[in-house]
Amino acid sequence: MRTPLSDRLGIEYAVFGFTPFPAVAAAISRAGGLGVLGAVRYGDAEDLAKDLDWMDAHCGGKPYGVDVVMPAKKVEGVTVEQVEAMIPEGHRDFVRAQLAKYGVPALPEGERGGWRITGWMEEVARSHVDVALEHPVKLLASALGSPPPDVVERAHAAGMLVAALAGSARHAQRHAEAGIDVIVAQGHEAGGHTGEIGTMVLVPEIVAAVHPLPVLAAGGIGTGAQVAAGLALGAQGAWLGSIWLTVTESDLASPVLRRKLLAAGSGDTVRSRALTGKPARQLRTEWTDAWESEESPGTLPMPLQGLLVAEALSRIQTYETPELIGTPVGQIVGQMNEERPVAAVMDELTRGFEQAVARLGRIASAEGEQA
Amino acid sequence: MRTPLSDRLGIEYAVFGFTPFPAVAAAISRAGGLGVLGAVRYGDAEDLAKDLDWMDAHCGGKPYGVDVVMPAKKVEGVTVEQVEAMIPEGHRDFVRAQLAKYGVPALPEGERGGWRITGWMEEVARSHVDVALEHPVKLLASALGSPPPDVVERAHAAGMLVAALAGSARHAQRHAEAGIDVIVAQGHEAGGHTGEIGTMVLVPEIVAAVHPLPVLAAGGIGTGAQVAAGLALGAQGAWLGSIWLTVTESDLASPVLRRKLLAAGSGDTVRSRALTGKPARQLRTEWTDAWESEESPGTLPMPLQGLLVAEALSRIQTYETPELIGTPVGQIVGQMNEERPVAAVMDELTRGFEQAVARLGRIASAEGEQA
Repeated sequence: MRTPLSDRLGIEYAVFGFTPFPAVAAAISRAGGLGVLGAVRYGDAEDLAKDLDWMDAHCGGKPYGVDVVMPAKKVEGVTVEQVEAMIPEGHRDFVRAQLAKYGVPALPEGERGGWRITGWMEEVARSHVDVALEHPVKLLASALGSPPPDVVERAHAAGMLVAALAGSARHAQRHAEAGIDVIVAQGHEAGGHTGEIGTMVLVPEIVAAVHPLPVLAAGGIGTGAQVAAGLALGAQGAWLGSIWLTVTESDLASPVLRRKLLAAGSGDTVRSRALTGKPARQLRTEWTDAWESEESPGTLPMPLQGLLVAEALSRIQTYETPELIGTPVGQIVGQMNEERPVAAVMDELTRGFEQAVARLGRIASAEGEQA
Repeated sequence: MRTPLSDRLGIEYAVFGFTPFPAVAAAISRAGGLGVLGAVRYGDAEDLAKDLDWMDAHCGGKPYGVDVVMPAKKVEGVTVEQVEAMIPEGHRDFVRAQLAKYGVPALPEGERGGWRITGWMEEVARSHVDVALEHPVKLLASALGSPPPDVVERAHAAGMLVAALAGSARHAQRHAEAGIDVIVAQGHEAGGHTGEIGTMVLVPEIVAAVHPLPVLAAGGIGTGAQVAAGLALGAQGAWLGSIWLTVTESDLASPVLRRKLLAAGSGDTVRSRALTGKPARQLRTEWTDAWESEESPGTLPMPLQGLLVAEALSRIQTYETPELIGTPVGQIVGQMNEERPVAAVMDELTRGFEQAVARLGRIASAEGEQA
């Protein structure tokens, strides 16, 4: 599965795997894809540095990438504490009431929980970029807006390609104008921040809009057949996120959450602003339902919503409150029904791709597919 | 483009074209696909009979299909007038107020307008089936629930295959249990009635759920590359509807509507209950916005909503009120930017399919795609 982009990056398969877990990212790269480590959960850049050091030792010399979150709207010179102060008390009351309703305990004294939202702040994101630039990162991806010009320049100077996610052709064109090298066309089906347009329509639209820039197909991809579909739409590779959540190497802290993911159907996700303030697809839970209910005060704009719910989500994850625990995940969750090692997933992706392409070849031939 | 299903139907290309216009359906069949005429707009079965007679004379001996709408919930022995009487006066007031706001004139005395919702009633749908059974129809499709057992039996006895649309794997399984032969997996991107699951995720889910029944991929398909993507997902053909709305042969009465369709982007549709009472994707207009606004009384369940708005939609279409005129259409509307004859669309679909398959073959080979 070779495209000009996969050749340029020196990877065997045009499969890009986004994951918050270094062990998963390294396994994807070792298996011939490009593991892309999500940096957003690192509140402290030193922790990211340690994990990238670990990646350097465990990728078997294969390329990898890092994904940072650079908010499109810059909030200059404002501290996390100052932003926190902008959150209305009524919203805090609502969060407290939800936690009380389900009896979610407070975190142990001094513990801040695993899930930090501070990675959404530009200041923190810039510290992630600084760390990435000190490592042999091949692809620097941005899950929100285009990174600022100086970040793109520094990445290019370090020999990295820069990728950015887009949910519309206009969004993709802005990335192209900002000097981005690779556009990730992320359809409605995807986990995390996602727009209204389905992958089937979005990918060819973006391919046409940013030609000749390479495009990755994202959203609803978890099998080799779906990789083939994404490439049929003109993409030079597939970008997969959700599928890695339930792999053996995944460091998903909560067994309850893992079981929920393995049991969920494709209809069990919801596109909600409850997590970050922008619409993001995630597992539907009583927590997301509460934000849609009549008692809900409504969600706050990014980054306020993320800061508002950060501690609550840490508590829910720490104590694994079954009704409330969730995660960003795409509609592909319906096909995530068993725990497999990364190598087995990559094997299915590449073999399934080849099988789909072989079947298409038979359909295109004069003899057609045999019954 | 040959699959076991296209061979069974005796068509050259596994392309299924749904259209309300006989001239378009006949042109699709003549071009090697299967034209499927939508019957729902025929209030009077005799008009459908006349148009099928015309099809018989203009398909060049090629196979064609008919699509009827059989509501899942049967309303036994109730007349259109009795159902009309169930519509609250407040809803009628809201419709009248919207028409007044935009100065939409009343229809001329005695005229009922082109768009009839009565096709949604089972009684009327059954009269469509009776007419279809008297013609050499190869595929009888149902755009809503499974047709009743006696309809499936009669269609099979007449040598027809029966197809039904599904927006979820569970829905598809119910069709399979009802003896349906072909499942149309219709993703979120599609025009008309559509569910939450994107085509990329829905098609393989349904293929697995109803194996070995053949599945058609629908939703977001308007080019040969998208046909290839749909078939890569395991489908035995592609089902296209929106793309035919703006062909030269299309009998779209309103030039205003045609211009709106040609100008619309993929983000200019909305999934709304305003048309029929069930979520159906359509062009977003000030009419659909009004039903979402604070003044809206909310939509009524099917078939009440359709009856409520039937006359209003006829008036809007007759007088081409620019702000209000719309139509069911999928996100593919963003790629419908020029008027072309059906033969040119079919040519792109088949050549584009072959090009996409050839490119996938190069990507799958050891040499890869060349830059």
